[in-house]
Amino acid sequence: MDDSRPFSPVALLGMGYMGGSLALAAREAGLVDRVVGFDRDPEAGRVARARGIVDEVSGAAEAAVAGAALVILATPVASLGALATQIAPAVRPDALVIDIGSVKAPVVQAIERTPLAGRYVGCHPIAGLEVSGAAHAHAGLYEGKPCYVCPGPRAQAQAIAAAESFWTGLGAHVVRLAPEPHDALMAAASHLPHVAAFALADSLSGVADALVAGIPAASPPTSLRDTTRVAASSPVMWRDIFLENSSALLPLVGALERSLGALRAAIEAGDGAALEALLRNARETRRRVVKSA
Amino acid sequence: MDDSRPFSPVALLGMGYMGGSLALAAREAGLVDRVVGFDRDPEAGRVARARGIVDEVSGAAEAAVAGAALVILATPVASLGALATQIAPAVRPDALVIDIGSVKAPVVQAIERTPLAGRYVGCHPIAGLEVSGAAHAHAGLYEGKPCYVCPGPRAQAQAIAAAESFWTGLGAHVVRLAPEPHDALMAAASHLPHVAAFALADSLSGVADALVAGIPAASPPTSLRDTTRVAASSPVMWRDIFLENSSALLPLVGALERSLGALRAAIEAGDGAALEALLRNARETRRRVVKSA
Repeated sequence: MDDSRPFSPVALLGMGYMGGSLALAAREAGLVDRVVGFDRDPEAGRVARARGIVDEVSGAAEAAVAGAALVILATPVASLGALATQIAPAVRPDALVIDIGSVKAPVVQAIERTPLAGRYVGCHPIAGLEVSGAAHAHAGLYEGKPCYVCPGPRAQAQAIAAAESFWTGLGAHVVRLAPEPHDALMAAASHLPHVAAFALADSLSGVADALVAGIPAASPPTSLRDTTRVAASSPVMWRDIFLENSSALLPLVGALERSLGALRAAIEAGDGAALEALLRNARETRRRVVKSA
Repeated sequence: MDDSRPFSPVALLGMGYMGGSLALAAREAGLVDRVVGFDRDPEAGRVARARGIVDEVSGAAEAAVAGAALVILATPVASLGALATQIAPAVRPDALVIDIGSVKAPVVQAIERTPLAGRYVGCHPIAGLEVSGAAHAHAGLYEGKPCYVCPGPRAQAQAIAAAESFWTGLGAHVVRLAPEPHDALMAAASHLPHVAAFALADSLSGVADALVAGIPAASPPTSLRDTTRVAASSPVMWRDIFLENSSALLPLVGALERSLGALRAAIEAGDGAALEALLRNARETRRRVVKSA
């Protein structure tokens, strides 16, 4: 271990947008001077190598983690438990292991059942976008953003401190939160908005031809642009997030169905008072939870 | 009439964000050098006067339109028919009358039943935002934006040409479209996205305390920020738009309810294949109808 760079070398498992940006950020912050990557998709490796995200691409996850001081698990959330089991024998005993998945309770439970327990700290930086792939990765993605650090019951204090120091070193604002409350919070703050955006975009597929014909795609109404923006996100990644966090998410989807039904019923009935009351409650809630535009 | 400024003086009925911005834009473009305003809300008049949006505030709509070469109806859509009837006797015989409401068929039908028929041309500039009030008005709102010009069957060719020339003079891109297809297009491109945003924000009111406690309101997840942005719009204005355009909007709300129900059912059943197929269809549709992020 190089004392001046306690997180170097890094093993980056999964070289997509989030992981690629994290490696770039760690390098730019001077925390890391060597990154070895692995991805099941060889094209991701080629892009990451060409963009200087990784110094070397390994042919296997076990080979990538050998010797690493920091192992970053940046694959889809549903894959993390099996990946941790697979690499555990090859991970250095003093290495720190983190993931950056959007759901924490099932991931932390799965990884704490492997020999990595103790050295593993679940993390979730709030910095996604609807783009995906290493080609879009950029070093500034996490700067000034919140990063939830969600240790499970078996995480060692030293590992938690190291994980928090890593994120702080990137310019992120660390928020400590246990995995279950994290998942409940994210179900409302991020997963339900994605459900709404995907459902809206899906429902428009029947009128897409008319929209393409009648609306300039490069300057659509801002309402259409913004409400559907995250529906351009990765279907595989969001399939996994929705399924992994279903227990926290489903009651909120039910509430959204009821709100939508109530709005529709008020329009159908021509009930302006009920409709206005619902819209006022919506505006009031929006103003409470989001301060800026 | 001043031949060098064929639209001056202007009567601005309704001095909110959209109307106020239109008066500022017309003035800045040199199309207009005098604006007389009226608003039922005296505070709107004070703000419009203080910001130089209008030169004079009238105490009655009839007084505001007397002598005007261009009458801009910028009040909520549900009020436009009655307002047109009220002012008709006072409007100059050669004046052009436009409105800027988001729904066109019922408005055009109502106004073409008044003596203003012939001189009236329904218009809809695509330039809203979630803010409201003359305090936010700005001259650049319509520049480079599409403006639908939706004449009814009784509109005179000269009036249509004048309306199009006015919008072109402001830098807007004129799109001619009959009122009914305009309303069908807007139901999908704007009104349904507003329904989705209001329903989502309403459904979050039960967890708003947890969101406020757990999420920095100034830097929320971008998904939450963008999907709910237009839920901060005027409840009264959107109540009227939803009710006025209910025949075009309700079938789309039904489709949204079905998409949301299918998404929920796939999560409940743990059906990854069905869920991924829906998310892929959503992403594909989003990419077709909106080219940029």
